[in-house]
Amino acid sequence: MSLLAVGTVAFDDIETPSGRAEKVVGGACTYISLAASHFVKPVQIVSVVGDDFPTDVLDYLRKRGVDLEGLQIKQGEKSFFWAGKYYRDLNTRDTLDTQLNVLATFDPVLPQAYQNAEYLMLGNLTPQVQMRVLQQLKRRPKLVALDTMNFWMNTALGDLLNVLKKVDVLTINDEEARQLSGEHSLVKAAKLIHKMGPKFLIIKKGEHGALLFQQGEVFFAPALPLAEVTDPTGAGDTFAGGFMGWMSKTGDLSFDNMKRGIIYGSAMASFCVEKFSIERLKGLTPAMIQKRVQQFADLVHFKI
Amino acid sequence: MSLLAVGTVAFDDIETPSGRAEKVVGGACTYISLAASHFVKPVQIVSVVGDDFPTDVLDYLRKRGVDLEGLQIKQGEKSFFWAGKYYRDLNTRDTLDTQLNVLATFDPVLPQAYQNAEYLMLGNLTPQVQMRVLQQLKRRPKLVALDTMNFWMNTALGDLLNVLKKVDVLTINDEEARQLSGEHSLVKAAKLIHKMGPKFLIIKKGEHGALLFQQGEVFFAPALPLAEVTDPTGAGDTFAGGFMGWMSKTGDLSFDNMKRGIIYGSAMASFCVEKFSIERLKGLTPAMIQKRVQQFADLVHFKI
Repeated sequence: MSLLAVGTVAFDDIETPSGRAEKVVGGACTYISLAASHFVKPVQIVSVVGDDFPTDVLDYLRKRGVDLEGLQIKQGEKSFFWAGKYYRDLNTRDTLDTQLNVLATFDPVLPQAYQNAEYLMLGNLTPQVQMRVLQQLKRRPKLVALDTMNFWMNTALGDLLNVLKKVDVLTINDEEARQLSGEHSLVKAAKLIHKMGPKFLIIKKGEHGALLFQQGEVFFAPALPLAEVTDPTGAGDTFAGGFMGWMSKTGDLSFDNMKRGIIYGSAMASFCVEKFSIERLKGLTPAMIQKRVQQFADLVHFKI
Repeated sequence: MSLLAVGTVAFDDIETPSGRAEKVVGGACTYISLAASHFVKPVQIVSVVGDDFPTDVLDYLRKRGVDLEGLQIKQGEKSFFWAGKYYRDLNTRDTLDTQLNVLATFDPVLPQAYQNAEYLMLGNLTPQVQMRVLQQLKRRPKLVALDTMNFWMNTALGDLLNVLKKVDVLTINDEEARQLSGEHSLVKAAKLIHKMGPKFLIIKKGEHGALLFQQGEVFFAPALPLAEVTDPTGAGDTFAGGFMGWMSKTGDLSFDNMKRGIIYGSAMASFCVEKFSIERLKGLTPAMIQKRVQQFADLVHFKI
């Protein structure tokens, strides 16, 4: 099975209550592809960087089974850069700086080998760019997931609604689900969002877990209570990467298997937040992931 | 097994996005005893009302197996009254009015028959009153649970810490756990709160579920995603009543059985919020409760 991931590959400056990290590797596509690489190879990526992006990181991605043919490297230009500061609750953050750089003119180009992708993860980007990727596919993938954010609901709602018609799984947070649907109840929000296109809706609630809605069915995945959360950056992308990695690996689109995918995604996200940038994802082994998934199972296990 | 419940029996004026209810029955002890009455009889209560409290409600409580011997009825005085308004997210509320009335001079007196209680639920009240109840017991109950709130942490912390030394289970919300411990991480907060006395800590997170911490162990109970939440008033008390009702009924203090108790408490709370005041709790049957508990089991069920 092949997984295609689209999104940013970037630099971040991050400040959290645990400390600071400057010009570290970030970007949705980086997190998605690294997380997914623990389940499926190759992970094909479509993204763009400047010539300032470290080659050792690209080499590391290649080593992990990430196919970089679709990564544009713009000579003489700079990579996308984001700086943010998290508050004590780690749920709220301020953006201190955004430098689009190469992203300002990003036009995704799918190499020939990518155009038959069976699984597609459209990371958070302008809805137009997400649509441009879909238009270059030769056939419809088995599963298309899309991540977005309130910014696009505010500034490009029409484009977002257009691309939503073409996706199977939407991943957003609870406030975004409320904004998109105009409903406070997540149960009612899910019903309205299903009508916009996505048969599956995953609502990410950070430290409060995640909900999966399919028409009439709902699954709740907890978040693992952690003693230390160092840096939440990339947790949602890592979740999506783990989820789509699992779906690509297994090829089973049943609701029961989606649940498993969400648990694997949650497990990967729980690692991600333990260190800055992609550091924690780098050291993972299959045994560590399996053990973490078992902790999720134990956390919610009860017998009536 | 006998359960003793202490707390307010009161009137509420409530405004939520769903509507208004004026001078309806409320109070922690009302919700606790009604919820617990679905599991264990009698539920002995210690509380106080004025002569304005409706006798048909007292008759109904009696009919449900609530023992009112410990309920003081003050002639010529008025019952405790609280008025509040909930905002759209239902997690934040403003107190519009508080009239202590009979509560201002409340001195709890335990009838002889209550002094050997095996299970004790100390509902949210001043820590001094909670302590006065403990002092009148002839022997230590098998399980003592205490509910409190940030108000007492701000105004009577010394008294609260004194009474905490004598309880087994503390039920508070996440912000209160953070305030009490000074730790943002709930895992770290739990460790510090265990040292204050309670071997078990239940952190109530409303629509985000509940966490149970025992030394080194943790259990997560989800909240049921509901299409309509009419009135959150009393949900925490109903949760505590369901939990302690289950513990009293079963007499099994193992961690596994505590988990079940938390699921039963969560199920009762999920009913409570569906209507104003105690209306939804009134119509419940054992089959309805069992069906709701099964929904909680289904909600988090997955197989790795």
